[in-house]
Amino acid sequence: MRPATGSRAFAQPASTSSFNGLGATVRHPTGPHRHSAPARRAPALLFVHQGHRRGGNPLRPANEPGGRYVLGVDSGGSGLRVALAEAADPAGAVSTRSATPVRTSAAGIDPAHMLELLLPMARELLAGAGDPVPVALVVGAAGMATLGDGLRAELPAALARELGVGRLALAADGVTAYAGALGQRPGAVVAAGTGMIALGTDLGSWRRADGWGHLLGDCGGGAWIGQAGLAAAMRAFDGRRGGSAALLARAEERFGPAGELPGRIYPRADRPAALAAFAPDVAACAPSDPVAASILRDAARHIAESAAAVCPADGGEVALTGGLFNMGAPLLDPLHRELTAQLPKAELTPAAGDPLHGALVIAAALASDGLRLPRDGRLLFVP
Amino acid sequence: MRPATGSRAFAQPASTSSFNGLGATVRHPTGPHRHSAPARRAPALLFVHQGHRRGGNPLRPANEPGGRYVLGVDSGGSGLRVALAEAADPAGAVSTRSATPVRTSAAGIDPAHMLELLLPMARELLAGAGDPVPVALVVGAAGMATLGDGLRAELPAALARELGVGRLALAADGVTAYAGALGQRPGAVVAAGTGMIALGTDLGSWRRADGWGHLLGDCGGGAWIGQAGLAAAMRAFDGRRGGSAALLARAEERFGPAGELPGRIYPRADRPAALAAFAPDVAACAPSDPVAASILRDAARHIAESAAAVCPADGGEVALTGGLFNMGAPLLDPLHRELTAQLPKAELTPAAGDPLHGALVIAAALASDGLRLPRDGRLLFVP
Repeated sequence: MRPATGSRAFAQPASTSSFNGLGATVRHPTGPHRHSAPARRAPALLFVHQGHRRGGNPLRPANEPGGRYVLGVDSGGSGLRVALAEAADPAGAVSTRSATPVRTSAAGIDPAHMLELLLPMARELLAGAGDPVPVALVVGAAGMATLGDGLRAELPAALARELGVGRLALAADGVTAYAGALGQRPGAVVAAGTGMIALGTDLGSWRRADGWGHLLGDCGGGAWIGQAGLAAAMRAFDGRRGGSAALLARAEERFGPAGELPGRIYPRADRPAALAAFAPDVAACAPSDPVAASILRDAARHIAESAAAVCPADGGEVALTGGLFNMGAPLLDPLHRELTAQLPKAELTPAAGDPLHGALVIAAALASDGLRLPRDGRLLFVP
Repeated sequence: MRPATGSRAFAQPASTSSFNGLGATVRHPTGPHRHSAPARRAPALLFVHQGHRRGGNPLRPANEPGGRYVLGVDSGGSGLRVALAEAADPAGAVSTRSATPVRTSAAGIDPAHMLELLLPMARELLAGAGDPVPVALVVGAAGMATLGDGLRAELPAALARELGVGRLALAADGVTAYAGALGQRPGAVVAAGTGMIALGTDLGSWRRADGWGHLLGDCGGGAWIGQAGLAAAMRAFDGRRGGSAALLARAEERFGPAGELPGRIYPRADRPAALAAFAPDVAACAPSDPVAASILRDAARHIAESAAAVCPADGGEVALTGGLFNMGAPLLDPLHRELTAQLPKAELTPAAGDPLHGALVIAAALASDGLRLPRDGRLLFVP
């Protein structure tokens, strides 16, 4: 296990993925911009590197040698992001975003609505690069595994027809988070924001732990931490054992009088996000409040348990990605201790990039026939 | 502390109160029926006992001596119940029910809809007793404290006009549960079904603990137990530490494949009830499954903590009421141990009756100017 490098190593831009609700979201209202997640380590892809990184320069025109392009998409609760990069340089992408999330119902993620949002954004990016035909496209989406049947049925033909793209994969956002963090190397990635999921692979198959949502799991994620903090605040309000006066004071600052807290939480459609909004208060109290510190120790234990459940038995790398890990030492210190104890053979590695970067990494692998991450009918569907 | 008397002492008919969702609900489609919650101990009311109990006989005609009548109402998530009794004999009531719950929105419980449901039921009961003018009426309702502003503004005048009733109280369902269980004696009552709330009084003021709902508390209630059980099932499914194969098998029997559990829970409007539906499975596993047993021990500790937070410092009686306590020894054994440890001065008492009975007890107290339970603008509003 590599020594803990502190919170900075895990800081990265917020993505729109469902597990990532804690990060501050920077919106870019118009036009493409340089994708802001530089790779901290070159992904270990198998295709031949076809060009040099060129810092902030515009993308190479499509008619130049080596101008083979891939598209990546990240779809989640806070909107849709699309990125275009040279296949040889997924980290050197331009990207654009829409704050409109793709419509999702019990019937699934709406493929027509995704195309309606995605196609103009993709065409705008392609136009900026001289209208190349993209070699590969990867869509990562929150809910892809369970709500992606419509996407799997309709997107391959529609994207081939509309963009001429021949190679395609549809990935769960946990898979794009994995690829963004560790590329195609074996190991485990914990993606945490409002929720918490761990995904691991030995490159033979995927293992998943948690990510079951705020009522069935997501143990140690932002909603879990915030909920535990608010419950401790209400304990103090009632005079029950185990309450925290510090958390009660914070809860009243954020939500108003404690007696009216139910009315502030239950009517909201985004209850998990409302709970997660209190997680930073728990972290702020932890240095001086034993109840808050204990909540974060429990969260760290849960997160490490999920990582341990999915990490290959012979070790591999473990990376943490998502807004939760911006919380700093009150969470990361106990988490690094738990990871060292529960995963003695694993190497803790900074995440290279975010899920949008991961979509590009997978697309670049498809472009070069170098996909090593395991295909899976729900998690990583390659038609 | 009186020795534990086993689950039978706490068994009582399910009420429609919000905390009471676990009990089997017996519906009576038409007409009044003998109210099925006989008092196990005569409530210590201050008015003069004006007649003898007469078993299953019809109520005394209003023109006979002593024929002074009171009405009680219990409104909750599964409908509305109305009972009529002689003021001197709240346990000898006739009652009727509607399966339609009173409409409730973020703006509160709808007073017009409550009257629309309540008045025909009350008139039907009064007609059966020879159309007396009731002396007092008490409405107990789930949500009365926080969502009862409309009821407090409109019901007193409307009920006086429509039924001629002069004495009225509007009570939180926790207060009617208290009065149903302990009458007007000091102590603490834990009411638990899907949720969990404890209410205590020294007859000077009320103390409340928990009852904050499934995201902020209700610790140890049915939804809490079911949620902990399902989380342990998903841990086993993932291969995380702390999972229970027995609970996983039960969860799949009840809800289908574990991987599809989120789709069975999150789309439901009654998520707390869906979680609570798994609580009996946790109890069934507890004798042979250490994880399930540990969940119920934790639940027992939480319930006792709430009782301890509200019980008068010098002791008093403690009663348990609501469907949760039909769960039997796996919950009651650790709960009795916790109550003995946390409330050494309190006396564990079987609940005399349910919240509908409690509404009649309070109405009878109003009828005789003998209300001893503390008035409170939200919990026990007497205009």
